[in-house]
Amino acid sequence: MINYNKLLSEYLPDKEENEKLFSISELVKKKINDYCIKENINAESMEVGSLSKNTNLKCSDIDIFILFDKKYSKEYIESKGTEIGHYILKNGYEKYAEHPYVSGYINGVKVDIVPAFKIDEGETIVSTVDRTPLHTRFVNSHSSEQIIKDIRLLKIFMKLINVYGSEISKSGFSGYLCELLTIKLGSFDNVIKKFAVLNGRLLIPENMDYKKRFSEPIIIIDPVDPNRNAAAAVSVENLSRMKVASKLFIKYGNLDFIKNSLAEEKRKRGTSIKIFILNKPDIIDEVIYTQAIRFKNKIWGIFKKYGFSPIASEIFVGRDIEILIEYEMDILPDVDIHQGPPVDSTEILKFIDVWKNNDRLMRGPYIIGDRIFVDTKRKLTGFYPIFYSEIEKIDIGKNLNGLKKNIKIIDVNENTDYEVLKRFYFKSLFD
Amino acid sequence: MINYNKLLSEYLPDKEENEKLFSISELVKKKINDYCIKENINAESMEVGSLSKNTNLKCSDIDIFILFDKKYSKEYIESKGTEIGHYILKNGYEKYAEHPYVSGYINGVKVDIVPAFKIDEGETIVSTVDRTPLHTRFVNSHSSEQIIKDIRLLKIFMKLINVYGSEISKSGFSGYLCELLTIKLGSFDNVIKKFAVLNGRLLIPENMDYKKRFSEPIIIIDPVDPNRNAAAAVSVENLSRMKVASKLFIKYGNLDFIKNSLAEEKRKRGTSIKIFILNKPDIIDEVIYTQAIRFKNKIWGIFKKYGFSPIASEIFVGRDIEILIEYEMDILPDVDIHQGPPVDSTEILKFIDVWKNNDRLMRGPYIIGDRIFVDTKRKLTGFYPIFYSEIEKIDIGKNLNGLKKNIKIIDVNENTDYEVLKRFYFKSLFD
Repeated sequence: MINYNKLLSEYLPDKEENEKLFSISELVKKKINDYCIKENINAESMEVGSLSKNTNLKCSDIDIFILFDKKYSKEYIESKGTEIGHYILKNGYEKYAEHPYVSGYINGVKVDIVPAFKIDEGETIVSTVDRTPLHTRFVNSHSSEQIIKDIRLLKIFMKLINVYGSEISKSGFSGYLCELLTIKLGSFDNVIKKFAVLNGRLLIPENMDYKKRFSEPIIIIDPVDPNRNAAAAVSVENLSRMKVASKLFIKYGNLDFIKNSLAEEKRKRGTSIKIFILNKPDIIDEVIYTQAIRFKNKIWGIFKKYGFSPIASEIFVGRDIEILIEYEMDILPDVDIHQGPPVDSTEILKFIDVWKNNDRLMRGPYIIGDRIFVDTKRKLTGFYPIFYSEIEKIDIGKNLNGLKKNIKIIDVNENTDYEVLKRFYFKSLFD
Repeated sequence: MINYNKLLSEYLPDKEENEKLFSISELVKKKINDYCIKENINAESMEVGSLSKNTNLKCSDIDIFILFDKKYSKEYIESKGTEIGHYILKNGYEKYAEHPYVSGYINGVKVDIVPAFKIDEGETIVSTVDRTPLHTRFVNSHSSEQIIKDIRLLKIFMKLINVYGSEISKSGFSGYLCELLTIKLGSFDNVIKKFAVLNGRLLIPENMDYKKRFSEPIIIIDPVDPNRNAAAAVSVENLSRMKVASKLFIKYGNLDFIKNSLAEEKRKRGTSIKIFILNKPDIIDEVIYTQAIRFKNKIWGIFKKYGFSPIASEIFVGRDIEILIEYEMDILPDVDIHQGPPVDSTEILKFIDVWKNNDRLMRGPYIIGDRIFVDTKRKLTGFYPIFYSEIEKIDIGKNLNGLKKNIKIIDVNENTDYEVLKRFYFKSLFD
């Protein structure tokens, strides 16, 4: 059986780190409260991150909320919130979720200072961040020392199998979701057992009719808001990874199955690979990632439509957007077999008329079954002219459209080295 | 408008030819009758071919039936029939439809002498040839000079657009079907109009429920046998050709649309083409043709299954069986993307186990959506080893199986010259 304590000791913060985190957290909270008293602002600070629930792993952030009275306007708390944030985090910079907030470092620890409205359970929230303090209270009022240990194990497990993180580029399990799963199912082992035998979607609670409201692969009603699915971010792919990892964990009783290695010579796949590189605009990753995925699908569509036979793809959004397409046909045949209307169609004579004296006609028109066909000569047989003429016409999202002219295309050979290519070659169960 | 008389004069026998045919026919019939009287056989001769209905085109055959009394056994009439056949056609040879019969030449005209039972309308037939004299009587009792002219026009039209002939390798319209269509629809023009606007199947009579008995593209109840579809042999492809040709004929008022020419340089299709050649066994064409088509489909299946991307095919059964496949991929990629079971399947761990230490594993196992995949290394990437190992396992019909070891495979280049290749390059609407 797996040595849980060894695993925990590897991933949990030591006493020293925890003390440092707590002292930073206390300092920031006090500074916020002092500022509010001095400026006569009806607001108070609250630690809401994993630290506040004792569920933090090594190297966690600190998340401090400034909870403003509901009498204030959204504009007021946004402006005051960032003002206080900049006052405390001297080198901080503004980020944007639903509100702007300030992020910075104190003694090497990342600290986010986020404005929100103070809401009690059952009250209507103004923005989604207002819910976070309620989550902290719920977890703290439902956890024991054992539950906390198991929440941390589940987080470690999910990190190791690479399904942890609810940001869109990950589409995995959030920290709060790990906490909820452990609390609702009672233990780490129960969570693993549940996923190992799960068929289809995970529903908590099970005996509810979700059809009308939710359609995601995992539905876990948020205890602080019955209209919210706390697992809405999890993709079917990450649910699948969690199922398979749970089965493997139960079978082998250890985590060795996670390791993956691939010999270098297996790069010789006998296919063609192109990488498309786009500068990443200065916009939040959530937005860019969605557009980058759409862009990847559009490029795939061009390969498919023209018959280059794409067989695999990969994406990496880092400093640049890197999109990889693997495909079988480097040059298209001259001939393009073109199916016309059914012979019963009123368009049939027009089709024959159009083609019979056309310079591009190679063969036909001829009939197979109840359909008419012509073999025509393709105008373009190489990828580049087709790609550039297609990409002109295609809408790849307002943030990427302007970059269309600067797409760099790499024909992959033995010496090509890009992050997306590494991901591609070493793709395994939990990458 | 088309000059019908010019067309008829091109394709109809002149007076001299007709007189020659009639004198040969009369001579053969008389010889048969004299033989029967002398030998005390209760039988009489009857001309049943197009000549007997005045619907013959140039260079037609002569078909003489010996109609035996029903008191005789099948064996008797077969044996006596061929005896009489050989007596009359000194250089004749036996052929086999449902009965054996004798075929030979007199003064350069082909003559078939076929034994059958003498049946009256409404009586049960013993074999399908017994129906033929009834067809002759039906046509003769329903035709006029105008109808005969129109039947001949329809036959010429169908010959020109290459849908004439009910043998399986043609799957087109028989002479009797041309006669029936003209009689039932009233004129050549009406037949053309009918096909030009026809949507889906042709049904004569229209107001009948055919679902239970017939499913062919054209259903014309045989006036001499309500249980028979006289058009059963016509394929959907030939029906389609007839529809398109009728539309074009009405649009242009001439037959120029039939001509087809293709410049030599259009052979450069940028694809690969292989021709498979098999010795034709000494068996009737109907049987061979069906098996050859099945063989073509099996070869297509091998190209398809292994990813060689077949895009077109052609067949020609002449002295040999020639099968042509055009395809896009000459060498397969090393990698073969292999989809495993859904992650919810109980087979999932077995799948991972099988592949994780397999020498042929190139990438994975990995998850896309709710499916698991591995990229494996193909054992064979060239066509020949794959083909020879597949063809071993495949049943291509009892008459061709023995020839599997002697399949000749031609990689087509500029200098290749086979009938099937000509058909392929010049395939047009009415080829």
